[in-house]
Amino acid sequence: MVYPGANHTRFEHALGAVHLMRSAIGILKLKGQEITDEESDAVTIAILLHDIGHGPFSHALESTIVQGVPHERISLLLMEQLNKEFGGKLELAIRIFTDQYHKHFLHQLVSSQLDMDRLDYLSRDSFFSGVSEGVVGAERIIKMLNVRNDELVVEYKGIYSVENFLIARRLMYWQVYLHKTVLSAEYLLINVLTRARELSAKGSELFATPALKAFLSHQVTLDDFTFNRPVDGRPTLDLFVSLDDNDIIASIKEWQSHPDAVLSYLSRSIINRRLYKIKISKKPIPEQKIALIKEKICSHFRVCDDMMHYFLIADTISNSAYNQIPNDKINVLFKNNKISDIADASDINLSVFSETVRKYFICYPKELDIK
Amino acid sequence: MVYPGANHTRFEHALGAVHLMRSAIGILKLKGQEITDEESDAVTIAILLHDIGHGPFSHALESTIVQGVPHERISLLLMEQLNKEFGGKLELAIRIFTDQYHKHFLHQLVSSQLDMDRLDYLSRDSFFSGVSEGVVGAERIIKMLNVRNDELVVEYKGIYSVENFLIARRLMYWQVYLHKTVLSAEYLLINVLTRARELSAKGSELFATPALKAFLSHQVTLDDFTFNRPVDGRPTLDLFVSLDDNDIIASIKEWQSHPDAVLSYLSRSIINRRLYKIKISKKPIPEQKIALIKEKICSHFRVCDDMMHYFLIADTISNSAYNQIPNDKINVLFKNNKISDIADASDINLSVFSETVRKYFICYPKELDIK
Amino acid sequence: MVYPGANHTRFEHALGAVHLMRSAIGILKLKGQEITDEESDAVTIAILLHDIGHGPFSHALESTIVQGVPHERISLLLMEQLNKEFGGKLELAIRIFTDQYHKHFLHQLVSSQLDMDRLDYLSRDSFFSGVSEGVVGAERIIKMLNVRNDELVVEYKGIYSVENFLIARRLMYWQVYLHKTVLSAEYLLINVLTRARELSAKGSELFATPALKAFLSHQVTLDDFTFNRPVDGRPTLDLFVSLDDNDIIASIKEWQSHPDAVLSYLSRSIINRRLYKIKISKKPIPEQKIALIKEKICSHFRVCDDMMHYFLIADTISNSAYNQIPNDKINVLFKNNKISDIADASDINLSVFSETVRKYFICYPKELDIK
Amino acid sequence: MVYPGANHTRFEHALGAVHLMRSAIGILKLKGQEITDEESDAVTIAILLHDIGHGPFSHALESTIVQGVPHERISLLLMEQLNKEFGGKLELAIRIFTDQYHKHFLHQLVSSQLDMDRLDYLSRDSFFSGVSEGVVGAERIIKMLNVRNDELVVEYKGIYSVENFLIARRLMYWQVYLHKTVLSAEYLLINVLTRARELSAKGSELFATPALKAFLSHQVTLDDFTFNRPVDGRPTLDLFVSLDDNDIIASIKEWQSHPDAVLSYLSRSIINRRLYKIKISKKPIPEQKIALIKEKICSHFRVCDDMMHYFLIADTISNSAYNQIPNDKINVLFKNNKISDIADASDINLSVFSETVRKYFICYPKELDIK
Repeated sequence: MVYPGANHTRFEHALGAVHLMRSAIGILKLKGQEITDEESDAVTIAILLHDIGHGPFSHALESTIVQGVPHERISLLLMEQLNKEFGGKLELAIRIFTDQYHKHFLHQLVSSQLDMDRLDYLSRDSFFSGVSEGVVGAERIIKMLNVRNDELVVEYKGIYSVENFLIARRLMYWQVYLHKTVLSAEYLLINVLTRARELSAKGSELFATPALKAFLSHQVTLDDFTFNRPVDGRPTLDLFVSLDDNDIIASIKEWQSHPDAVLSYLSRSIINRRLYKIKISKKPIPEQKIALIKEKICSHFRVCDDMMHYFLIADTISNSAYNQIPNDKINVLFKNNKISDIADASDINLSVFSETVRKYFICYPKELDIK
Repeated sequence: MVYPGANHTRFEHALGAVHLMRSAIGILKLKGQEITDEESDAVTIAILLHDIGHGPFSHALESTIVQGVPHERISLLLMEQLNKEFGGKLELAIRIFTDQYHKHFLHQLVSSQLDMDRLDYLSRDSFFSGVSEGVVGAERIIKMLNVRNDELVVEYKGIYSVENFLIARRLMYWQVYLHKTVLSAEYLLINVLTRARELSAKGSELFATPALKAFLSHQVTLDDFTFNRPVDGRPTLDLFVSLDDNDIIASIKEWQSHPDAVLSYLSRSIINRRLYKIKISKKPIPEQKIALIKEKICSHFRVCDDMMHYFLIADTISNSAYNQIPNDKINVLFKNNKISDIADASDINLSVFSETVRKYFICYPKELDIK
Repeated sequence: MVYPGANHTRFEHALGAVHLMRSAIGILKLKGQEITDEESDAVTIAILLHDIGHGPFSHALESTIVQGVPHERISLLLMEQLNKEFGGKLELAIRIFTDQYHKHFLHQLVSSQLDMDRLDYLSRDSFFSGVSEGVVGAERIIKMLNVRNDELVVEYKGIYSVENFLIARRLMYWQVYLHKTVLSAEYLLINVLTRARELSAKGSELFATPALKAFLSHQVTLDDFTFNRPVDGRPTLDLFVSLDDNDIIASIKEWQSHPDAVLSYLSRSIINRRLYKIKISKKPIPEQKIALIKEKICSHFRVCDDMMHYFLIADTISNSAYNQIPNDKINVLFKNNKISDIADASDINLSVFSETVRKYFICYPKELDIK
Repeated sequence: MVYPGANHTRFEHALGAVHLMRSAIGILKLKGQEITDEESDAVTIAILLHDIGHGPFSHALESTIVQGVPHERISLLLMEQLNKEFGGKLELAIRIFTDQYHKHFLHQLVSSQLDMDRLDYLSRDSFFSGVSEGVVGAERIIKMLNVRNDELVVEYKGIYSVENFLIARRLMYWQVYLHKTVLSAEYLLINVLTRARELSAKGSELFATPALKAFLSHQVTLDDFTFNRPVDGRPTLDLFVSLDDNDIIASIKEWQSHPDAVLSYLSRSIINRRLYKIKISKKPIPEQKIALIKEKICSHFRVCDDMMHYFLIADTISNSAYNQIPNDKINVLFKNNKISDIADASDINLSVFSETVRKYFICYPKELDIK
């Protein structure tokens, strides 16, 4: 919707993260860390599958048709299913993924503030979006990795690369992942799916691919996933993995001509890329501004009160460049073997990077004449 | 299916071709060719829209559900429709596209052996597939363009770049576009759609998105497109442009569980990437080998005679690096203002490049035990 | 000496800065800033020639054979000489370069914290050294440039790119420009030239190319440059521009076998890349450590007191990511037309970036056995 | 002189070739070829040092001051010297380099039509010159390497990459290595050195760095190298390795003001990049044209007869894309284990590539008014 070249997929990302993991394992072994072949395979499997529980349009779906079911849980359920199929061969990968293995640093390679996941997606997204400043020195950071007291650390020579990584990540968040047009499209998609489900619950006739139809007409819960209960006759997990972007888009395309005015309006908006106008602000949006927009929506679309949320979206976004969480710090290893949090290790005071920046936004149809 | 990074789209290609067209226009004007602003806009529109008539999985569709309707014709029909919408503003673009404008070289920029289409797609496909040898010096070739006697020519300093372009194009054809796995997947897709249509004609119940359903249940002709006749209540062109990859894939996914054994087998093969084994040969495949495979298919799948063509695919592919066609040659301009066909202009005898290379292939299910 | 791929030259840098200048002028004109063709040419000439006064191994020479003559002054003198040759055609370029032209923002394009010089050299040095994190979004920053109250400003959408630029610049300083091996080599070179000059002053016989010999045997002053006084029969400026890396290296190569033990030791060290060991520290080097090293040098090399400075180098290096100087700030332009210093405009408190970071270092021969 | 970015060095090339060699060894071992660690080290040393005998401006020097001493011989002599220094550790490397080791394919990795030398320099030169069409798929070709009957072969899947390699190499020769401005500069350099030596032989006073002076004033022979005889008191090999670009350029700079009119004219031409005009032709340059130019040189420069060759250069250049030499073919390995020469293995008739293309050229000063 924003960067025409950004057509890369989770599949490529998974392969890329595996590639980085192999480099990281090689480097750590060269530095004398003991990593057995079994551990090496397991941590590689863990990174390969870490995102497997994402549905199509991941975050939009998590807010709608699989509400309350975090993708990490689905990843785990799928790994467990694969583990059965492969006769227990994913046992160790699962323990590393869930941080139940005694070598904690292996988990950190899969999930931490310097994990192979982030190093890959930042490089990849900056490459395909053309946002060249988002480049992180993934290769260099990996070369600087080491392990002390079972914790992943970065050697002090890599400090500047880590600083750059944090600032590049910050830039990618505000400029790409939370790009205003991206936000507007994502919230519109959430609204489309919410409306479709609402209509479905009311018994309205609605075209959808069979897999999507199942999720629209049933409120699937975490338990349904965990016990793989059948929905419309098919086990929940099977149904979920059969769902992809094609189901969502093919269905929304049809909804453009649905008799429900709200659903068809929203669907046409997204398919024809007539996205809502979005205003982002460092301060909360003033109440009177919101009241004014509501009034205009009410008079223009004849849609008031309970339908209002389909036309006026108001929410906040936030991000911090670095999370100074006790158990997930970026540790720097000095020549004298001392270890410090990156925020303290840098020449400059990086505590500013761990502040959470929050922004407020509203979205509404472009037709409304609002300044 | 083959190159995980090759997720680029026709949209990006159209933008890229426009970018090259602008460079080419700039260069030609610098060299003294008169190109008015109107002509410049028109030739840019022509290249922007040159591929607009392609349906999803272009070549597979052209062999099945829109058989006998070349995509160039649909491109033209869509341009004409846009021309009406925009009050005649595409008039000149259409004349250039159809080579009815007196400045023939403008048409050649859109469609010839050195057009902006080829220069873009070769560069783009080599970049995203990672086949680095496919790189063509598009920028350099464009810098060497000129016009003589209303024909596009390449200045002699660009000869080596053109030679390299021809060889790179040859490589891209045999190594990427006609890659054996690509062929196998494409013919499987053709078979899926053929079977779906066959079942549809027999009145079999079949899930499909509404747009695809219309094409499956009607044999739409060129006349239907030309007169934009309604199919299932919607004008043919509207129906066609509403069709995209999502319709095809979402439908095939469902067909995996269709009661028809052939359709479900083919659909599962493609969705799970269990493609047919393919053998390519410079010589025709021996009759007895084909007979043997038929026999195995008959005994293994209990599918003989009239269904055989779904399981055994036999066809030829061909390509020539350079087509020495009288009206579409690559002309080289020498310092003394003489012009020669590239095949004669080169230091080495390039006539070999204009030979058509033909290869024969067969595809059949991997389950068959054939050496 | 450190990055084998970093063989790029000032000539390429000058061309690159011209390229960026052209983009910047184009963008500013598109945004409605009036820049005449004459001004456009002048600012382009100014950036082309901004570095022309650098001698070979610029900073090492400025500390030795042209001590007290800043390269900016030589650049200006050469521009003035060219101005005479070209009949006054560089008049405006010189006024812009010296900030005497009423359009101050043109000077800022040549020399400020976001000038085309920095944008080019950071991109170029990060590319050729392979320090990928040093990449700055030069193109994007240029697209965000504008002018308000005759001051160059960056539109607020470019804030993240500027933050990244500051952090990338910081990284390039500490990791590349002030790389420990670079420092060690640079100070060794200074010592070689200092010793050669000292010997020359004492009347010692010394091979040198004629141009270098002139500078070794005369203490050339700023006045000698300004009035272009003859040295060894040739005008100072002519002599200076005839000097390049070849003179320095060809001479040092010969000094390896010079009878003076200090000169030959230093020359062999640099030519054979047996650089001094270097220790960098955030705190001043303790006195007793320095005393210890001196003692060892004295006993090992039989070189004490007045020659000591050739074997023990102690100095400081410093850099700040962003200089909050009143007249040279990076200004951000907001949508409401307000302007703020980047340090205040960012979501996060960037004042930390303007702190000067200082480090202390010592260098001494590797032969000494010091921990 | 032509491509401002092409400042890369032999050192980088040597490192790059080592890098490719390591890949090739890894691939061949993966495919089951036995290569011991000792062999692996030796072949890597051989490629690292294969070019070590090149002097500065290699080909120009080989035609002048070290005439009759091929650089391959000097490489070998230096390897032998290093072998003594390292106590025989280069024994095997030398046997591989000189093709005296029983595993012939190891020699082919160092020196053949698909050696690591060519794969590296073509990639490198196309990258740094910006001639993007010169890119060869080095990685892919290496992946396709194998060994049969102790001969290096390319698996049939790599045919298109090899074709592309041959065409790219052809392009690089004619467009970069034999670029007309490169030729003109190279022959001018040969003339400068020839004249300097001639003057030196006549006893004329001439500035030169000591190393260059030794070669100018003595006609050093292959025997002098082989027996490392002293020249001006230093062994020939030591003297030769101490010579680099700096000696040549620093000396030519001084020769600009030499009293000999020919030497100073040639030197100024090269230093100020006022190169001779060059005309290249597929046919021999007509005698009367040459006569005419001679006449003009004679009247304009007052230089006739025996000095003429400094002002009028006439020679030929030639290259063939592929040399069909019995002992150095590019062999293609088919699936059925048959092996063919690439010229026969390709779909198209590549014999045309093995034709030698020859061109004729003349160079003369730009001041002459010749059409």
